[in-house]
Amino acid sequence: MTTTELRPETPLDEPVEVPPPLDTEVLRRVLDGRFADLREQFRREAPADLFTPTDDLSTRDHRDLTRQRLRQLAELGGHELGYARPWGGDSPGGQVAQFEMLGFGDASLMIKSGVQWGLFGGAVQALGTERHHSTLLEPLLRLELVGCFGMTETGHGSDVSSIGTTATYDPATQEFVVHTPDVSCRKDYIGGAAEDADVAVVFAQLVTGGTSQGVHAFVVPLREDGVDLPGIWRGDDGRKMGLNGLDNGRLGFDRVRIPRTALLNRYADVAEDGSYSSPIASANSRFFTMLGALVKGRVSVSGGALSQTKVGLEIALRYALQRTQFKRPGGDGEVVLLDYLAHQRRLLIPLATTYALSFAQDDLLSEMDELLRVQLAGNEPDATRQRAFESHAAGLKVASTWHATRTLQTCREACGGNGFLADSRLPQLKADTDVFTTFEGDNTVLLQLVAKGQLTAYAQQFSDLDTLGMARFATRDFVSTYAGRSPARSLVADVVEAGRIPEELHDRAWQLRMLADRERHVVESLAKRMRKARSRPEAERFEAVDELQDHLLLAGRAHVERVVAEAFAAAIARCDDPAVVELLSDVFDLHALSVLEAEKGWYLQHRRMTTLRAKAVTTAVNAVCRKLRPRTGELLDGFGTPRAWLASSLVP
Amino acid sequence: MTTTELRPETPLDEPVEVPPPLDTEVLRRVLDGRFADLREQFRREAPADLFTPTDDLSTRDHRDLTRQRLRQLAELGGHELGYARPWGGDSPGGQVAQFEMLGFGDASLMIKSGVQWGLFGGAVQALGTERHHSTLLEPLLRLELVGCFGMTETGHGSDVSSIGTTATYDPATQEFVVHTPDVSCRKDYIGGAAEDADVAVVFAQLVTGGTSQGVHAFVVPLREDGVDLPGIWRGDDGRKMGLNGLDNGRLGFDRVRIPRTALLNRYADVAEDGSYSSPIASANSRFFTMLGALVKGRVSVSGGALSQTKVGLEIALRYALQRTQFKRPGGDGEVVLLDYLAHQRRLLIPLATTYALSFAQDDLLSEMDELLRVQLAGNEPDATRQRAFESHAAGLKVASTWHATRTLQTCREACGGNGFLADSRLPQLKADTDVFTTFEGDNTVLLQLVAKGQLTAYAQQFSDLDTLGMARFATRDFVSTYAGRSPARSLVADVVEAGRIPEELHDRAWQLRMLADRERHVVESLAKRMRKARSRPEAERFEAVDELQDHLLLAGRAHVERVVAEAFAAAIARCDDPAVVELLSDVFDLHALSVLEAEKGWYLQHRRMTTLRAKAVTTAVNAVCRKLRPRTGELLDGFGTPRAWLASSLVP
Repeated sequence: MTTTELRPETPLDEPVEVPPPLDTEVLRRVLDGRFADLREQFRREAPADLFTPTDDLSTRDHRDLTRQRLRQLAELGGHELGYARPWGGDSPGGQVAQFEMLGFGDASLMIKSGVQWGLFGGAVQALGTERHHSTLLEPLLRLELVGCFGMTETGHGSDVSSIGTTATYDPATQEFVVHTPDVSCRKDYIGGAAEDADVAVVFAQLVTGGTSQGVHAFVVPLREDGVDLPGIWRGDDGRKMGLNGLDNGRLGFDRVRIPRTALLNRYADVAEDGSYSSPIASANSRFFTMLGALVKGRVSVSGGALSQTKVGLEIALRYALQRTQFKRPGGDGEVVLLDYLAHQRRLLIPLATTYALSFAQDDLLSEMDELLRVQLAGNEPDATRQRAFESHAAGLKVASTWHATRTLQTCREACGGNGFLADSRLPQLKADTDVFTTFEGDNTVLLQLVAKGQLTAYAQQFSDLDTLGMARFATRDFVSTYAGRSPARSLVADVVEAGRIPEELHDRAWQLRMLADRERHVVESLAKRMRKARSRPEAERFEAVDELQDHLLLAGRAHVERVVAEAFAAAIARCDDPAVVELLSDVFDLHALSVLEAEKGWYLQHRRMTTLRAKAVTTAVNAVCRKLRPRTGELLDGFGTPRAWLASSLVP
Repeated sequence: MTTTELRPETPLDEPVEVPPPLDTEVLRRVLDGRFADLREQFRREAPADLFTPTDDLSTRDHRDLTRQRLRQLAELGGHELGYARPWGGDSPGGQVAQFEMLGFGDASLMIKSGVQWGLFGGAVQALGTERHHSTLLEPLLRLELVGCFGMTETGHGSDVSSIGTTATYDPATQEFVVHTPDVSCRKDYIGGAAEDADVAVVFAQLVTGGTSQGVHAFVVPLREDGVDLPGIWRGDDGRKMGLNGLDNGRLGFDRVRIPRTALLNRYADVAEDGSYSSPIASANSRFFTMLGALVKGRVSVSGGALSQTKVGLEIALRYALQRTQFKRPGGDGEVVLLDYLAHQRRLLIPLATTYALSFAQDDLLSEMDELLRVQLAGNEPDATRQRAFESHAAGLKVASTWHATRTLQTCREACGGNGFLADSRLPQLKADTDVFTTFEGDNTVLLQLVAKGQLTAYAQQFSDLDTLGMARFATRDFVSTYAGRSPARSLVADVVEAGRIPEELHDRAWQLRMLADRERHVVESLAKRMRKARSRPEAERFEAVDELQDHLLLAGRAHVERVVAEAFAAAIARCDDPAVVELLSDVFDLHALSVLEAEKGWYLQHRRMTTLRAKAVTTAVNAVCRKLRPRTGELLDGFGTPRAWLASSLVP
């Protein structure tokens, strides 16, 4: 049995049958998901001039334009949705959906609005109490008060709990003294800090009575009547790769005094006499509760990355649908770029994955909406559910942003020299989104957090199991071990499979099982290795655990891939339009098979796939590409992006 | 046997032994290769202000600065090396080596100089004859005549033979009439066309006596006394992702008349009466001979990409050597980024591959130098050798430029938010080099050309074989088939191997065999499939051959990977400093093992690797990363880049 004998289901010499066109409006609504109405409204009502190109602007002009556009947005509304009912909200998912819609335009504006109404306003809402809400929320929603979010420091990026800025309580004056001890503790890369922010939410080590209580957030005024207050130092991060409409900068504090009440005190407070109190006993869980309350940022970045990816893909694919490259051998008819299999693989696979990620994002939005509404009502969401959600949010942020970086790179290359010209818009899409893999948590660090969450869940599973469960688990574990280690077994399967490869490969249940099985195996083996590493003497532990970093990253990735595929499958199951279901099923097929193909090394190595099957997967990916090629236009229509928003010379 | 039992050679609990420091000057000379003296001279003599940053400049200012710097270069000299002896040259390799040195600075200047003295001047030298040389070379070398290279058209990127510009001979006036029939035939993305070029080498379909003779090159004046000549139309490509110091533009010709002698007539001529003559009978081989004479451009882009990659890697690695992220668990001592295995894998593997590609590039430069010196002397190089060289040049251009894009992306991410700031220099490195995968031939198209060359060579091998050879070949083929198809056999090997995995994995001969074997297998199976596809009826042939595009790309990749590794191994074999040999051997190990790891899916699928061995490869990669971690500074010193040239805020 050789590769050539594995023919795609549609033989080459039979023309591909083109199914009747489907109602792309239905497809669009399915993809728009839970907040479809809001998205449709935005498409109708958003001012057209929000979407004109900005690539030729100087830093100064781009910042000015972005400021001006932010005022337009303040009038348009939508951002208030993320706030509590009295401020017109109670739909945090709706707020993020609107943020995602901004992602079809200039990313500088999207991020600028995210800094003001997501990060800054969000921190006031989530970490503050009535005294902050009543004084700050209305002005900040109306843009009468512009703020920034001062968490990251020059020397402390990923390890936020180690930031060096201090806020020391002085009972004599009932004030906190905010201070930057050295240059590595400057706040850095802070959107709005260079120019626009009047006020900052500053994260600092709270010290009272000589004791540090860990990181807390404070509202620190930066200027009054347009003049910076004493002790405030600002720096400008200057020109960046992208997002130059946003004024990123640095902040330093030289013993700046703020009132005791400037502490955002939902989760902890300091009394007039300096005594510290918190409903959460452990400093560690207090810190993670605060960070958890801010998780909307990650969900937003994930969604924004997908919107920008959709724009890039639509530009590259519509270009590929009309651009000719070589003449058709034999001379009859023209061949456009997308007629080439290699080009289909380059662009249709990311298109399918964009669909998959969009459905996962919609699930995340729904879950976030429910959890944050509990929080907005002043209660705490269920801890287990919140933890699971945070892990999903981190994982999807990683998947979406790396997908954006990779896909937009591919789009640029797929458009050749045209993709290098600014007026194609691809350069700006690439440049703006590039930092998404870093902000709201570096992807490599986040993915390890996801994996550590899996390990915890895995350990939990053990401790929760009753006797029966334990037995079931043991059997499953045994099966997994057996399937993983017995070469003879899989070789027998190889022979048995030969006749029925194509059908099972396209079976969604089988595809999902393959992904779930991989995740389980990777986590189980990681847990074993981790237990061993952690049992080593403390001096050797760092190296021993570090040795597992790759395994951790793999576990995180396997988890996210399974979750994304399941979300996609669930979305298809919910859909009741047969034509849409049929099309989405092929899109699912392409996505799932392409993951299996990309990971075939793992599957072969762990004897989850025979060599025959690995070859068949590639054949199947190629066949689905050909099948979807005539549906490309419909799939792009499903994104629902008004043509003017594409703003690319490549799509007139 | 599980993964955990496969320990790296240096157990975790024994400290890695740091060998005595080696003489990095020797290492640098080894890496500098055949043109080491020239590179050293450039490091000493290049004006420091060529290397100041340009990221904050407007398009206008950047173009002005680049023009001014080009004049500095004209005075510095070095570019004349690529020309025939009367013009001070006879060292085309030296010219490219100097171009590569410019790659440590602003890529706009590098490419600008490449347009003038590589593409434009190079075409005059290679395709012209005495009448062009005597009038044009001296002024263009002195920059008294600025030219551009008009090949690509808006609608014809990769398929140069189909360009639409015509040059029709008019015997009445003994002139060619150069004409752009429609907008798709405008020359586009032409460096220098927007503003600076006084003259263009224009590629056009030569028509005489009503017959088209295919693509030829003509010298077409664009302006006189600063004013564009009648019939010349110029457009500006405007802002681009990068390389904004270079004025890319468009050219159109409205029946522009040029003298008969403007035809660059080394390979074909038109007599006064309009009769056409050429020493090369076939239009096709004439066209490819002309393109072959211009292959220096590909070699240059490959080298320039590597230089820019070296700058980016040095910035990211020196940053990783001092940047702390998390505290060391247990608290004793700081952990810098490069102490993490994941970070080592991200950056040390590309560092090793950069070494590998540099040695392959040096081989290419030597070969090019010899072949082009034959050409400069007015002779034609050996056709077989020239063809092999062209294939290597195309393959290495693909490998180096994709390596640059991937590596600089990784460098940006590895520097987090700092890597997004312009003053880190990473944004500009990324933006400038991004188009290298497109120009001088789109990588995807080039890689297919490489593979087609392999197929030709493979067919040639058959036809050259005598009876004995045929028998030998058949045996080899059988062995390959057997090894590829018999699962039982490889499973037996699995058991046998268990005891001696680590040693063989680090055996260079084994590593090279693995790469060569893969290439052979891929090409053999491709040849079989291709023969089948080509035998189909003409109407189906396009789809049948297109189905093999992925296989073609794989064949190209496997070929280049083998060639690069062999070049690296040969360089080590030539080196006589034991300390350098020892270090480079580890670098080779990391490079080769990382290729095997990345391709383990293929090796497993084709039963060239057991699952046990595949796991061991990953363990070995990790072990070599740890071993090279303390040698990082020395390896960067080997690049020999003066610190001031890095011009990055991340490396003070």
